[in-house]
Order: sequence, then C-alpha cells, then structure tokens
Amino acid sequence: MIRWREAKREDVPAIVALLAEDALGATRESDDMAAYYAAFDAMSYEYGNSLIVGEADGRVVATYQLTFITGLSLRATRRAQVESVRVTEKLRSEGVGAALMRDAEMRALHEGCSLLQLTADKSREGAHRFYERAGFTPSHIGFKKPIS
Amino acid sequence: MIRWREAKREDVPAIVALLAEDALGATRESDDMAAYYAAFDAMSYEYGNSLIVGEADGRVVATYQLTFITGLSLRATRRAQVESVRVTEKLRSEGVGAALMRDAEMRALHEGCSLLQLTADKSREGAHRFYERAGFTPSHIGFKKPIS
Repeated sequence: MIRWREAKREDVPAIVALLAEDALGATRESDDMAAYYAAFDAMSYEYGNSLIVGEADGRVVATYQLTFITGLSLRATRRAQVESVRVTEKLRSEGVGAALMRDAEMRALHEGCSLLQLTADKSREGAHRFYERAGFTPSHIGFKKPIS
Repeated sequence: MIRWREAKREDVPAIVALLAEDALGATRESDDMAAYYAAFDAMSYEYGNSLIVGEADGRVVATYQLTFITGLSLRATRRAQVESVRVTEKLRSEGVGAALMRDAEMRALHEGCSLLQLTADKSREGAHRFYERAGFTPSHIGFKKPIS
C-alpha cells in the first residue's frame, strides 16, 4: 500500500533521485542539491503549488507536483495542473501511476477544481496511453520556450 | 501603443468580453459576472498567478494570464505559464500578440523563470504558427480531464 502525502524538506534527495531515474530526466538533473532545496523552500511560499510523494514501507517510491490555478476562462474554472510525475522503476505497471492520478484528482476536487491538466513530452508514448486510460483527452499541443 | 499592466477588478467585464469574443470561447463563457469576480478575487491570494491586460486609448484590447511555478524538475527550473491569451478581433495581425508575448517573457525573466510554457487547442492552427514564430517548440501533448 502506498501512502500519499505532501513532501517534507527531507524528501528532496529522494524526489530528485526519482526525477533522475527517468529516461529524459537522466540527462537533465544534477547532483548539486542546493538548487533543489532552494526550489523546495520557494514552493512553500507559492500558495496552491505543492509536491506530493507516495511512500511505501517508509520509502519514497513516487512523486508528482500539483498546482491549483484559478483563472477567468471557461466560466472561471479552477484548474489543477499535474507536473513531474514519476514512479520508481521497480514499481511500474503495478497500478501505482493510477493510484497517483486518483490522489491528484481527489486533492483537486477538494480544492474546488473542475479540470485536471498536464502535458507530456511527445516521445513518451507509454505515458500517453496511460493518460488516455486514466480519462484524459489529448486535446492540446504543449509549447515550450527556454528564456534567458 | 499598448500599455501592459496587471488587471484591476474593474477590468473583469472587459476581460470576459475578450474571452467570449474568441471562436472557442464564444460557446463556453457566460453572462453571469459573479463567478468571474470571485475568481479574480481568489487569484489575488495565489502568489505568482496574475492577469495582465493590454490597454490602448484607455480600453482593454488584449489579455493573458501568467503563472509562475517553481518546481524541482529540470534542475529546479522556475516556469512561467501563459494561459487565456486573447487579442481583440480588430487588432489581430497588427503585432499585438507578439508584443504580448514579449511582455510575458519580460515578466517571466524578472521573476527568475527560465522556461515559458503554454498549451493551445489542437484546432487553433493560426495560434500554433504564431507560437512557433515566437520561438516556441511544440514538443508536448496537452492532456485535459474534466472532474467532478
């Protein structure tokens, strides 16, 4: 059984390890923890922006980020945005991802959201099938632009 | 010349009119202002989530929503998310959209973001071309799920 809870500061290394375990994440995460701790601390000031972890036998085995975003469009729909979904390699295909999405949906409803949204890299075909099975519609194109 | 500024409560009707002017928005916005005002008020408590308007000759002619989202992934990249971009019909193709994106990028950089992101409905082909010209890469698929 997995217990889903808000991440604590001491979970940061385990979360970063999960991010780096991923195929795309492997090339883009770093060993330098300072920036990750700083981001975790900054998130505590961003109301409605939180990191969730899934814990099994006292270990962090999954994580996702959930952000509640109020806006005016769609008759003032409040959205819940899911980001950085990761499940540890050895627990894949065991329903952990589905449990994670149920946890996200429950938290989103509790916060008055009526839309759950996320984007997935075009190359993550397994993830696309998973999100469609979980009731999502691939109705949008996600655009990104690095800025500096 | 367009002046970009944070929206005030009295701009809400003009913003909703812009949302409804849009092809997709026409079918999904409402005349009941109460929910929009409530959402505007709720946004003031969501640090980093703001509505911007573009004003010309004292009138609101464009709007977008900008949300700053700190997270751990991508070496703790802070993202700026653009949502609900609208330019009034009669000023389309006059560079207002490009000016809007420059304003968003400037605000994002000022807030320490290194990634600008947005999604667009698959049917908005004109918007896709616009975002690619503005330097965005259509690297992701955007998934949505209504919840209740």
